Amino acid sequence: MSGSGLAGKVGVGHYAVVFTSQRRAGDDGYAQTAEEMARLAAQQPGFLGMESARNDDGLGITVAYFRDEASIAAWKAHADHQAAQLAGRERWYRAYRVRVCRVEREYGFDR
Amino acid sequence: MSGSGLAGKVGVGHYAVVFTSQRRAGDDGYAQTAEEMARLAAQQPGFLGMESARNDDGLGITVAYFRDEASIAAWKAHADHQAAQLAGRERWYRAYRVRVCRVEREYGFDR
Repeated sequence: MSGSGLAGKVGVGHYAVVFTSQRRAGDDGYAQTAEEMARLAAQQPGFLGMESARNDDGLGITVAYFRDEASIAAWKAHADHQAAQLAGRERWYRAYRVRVCRVEREYGFDR
Repeated sequence: MSGSGLAGKVGVGHYAVVFTSQRRAGDDGYAQTAEEMARLAAQQPGFLGMESARNDDGLGITVAYFRDEASIAAWKAHADHQAAQLAGRERWYRAYRVRVCRVEREYGFDR
């Protein structure tokens, strides 16, 4: 999945979905789908932002922030997202973990 | 910070510290300190694992998992880590966010 910069608008009681994945070699349609999913996720009710990074060795982390658990459940069940999840298991990922987390506090720094 | 692979041993009620940062250009001692902090963090009581990825454009995400809030507080207050945090604000980061989150559930996939 793609994403640029730091997510804003996240606060206590919101949710972070931490998706950590190890990619297999080759693109095999991954980049295009990842872009589509990032665009689609951003249109979901309750979506607050997304951050994404991947190392050259294939280890990637995407954190998507949502207002509540219902928003996460709806996005997980979205038909296009379901198809992407299946393709992910069949073609793109060697392994992944999803950790659904409740934001307890936030702080930061800006130059 | 560095880290390789997926963290294990994380479960419901544990904590994820999501550190998302935008690096400034140049290394300026960053890589060495990041490595030291990853090694030091792994020695802290309550540390469960760490995942880390950074894009070529400088956007990075490190997720450190801890058993409880007390472990997070102790690591944040560690003298060497405090020095690294200060150097981070003065030299290495354009911006960052820290989101302390409680893990509500976890699932995954392994080939």
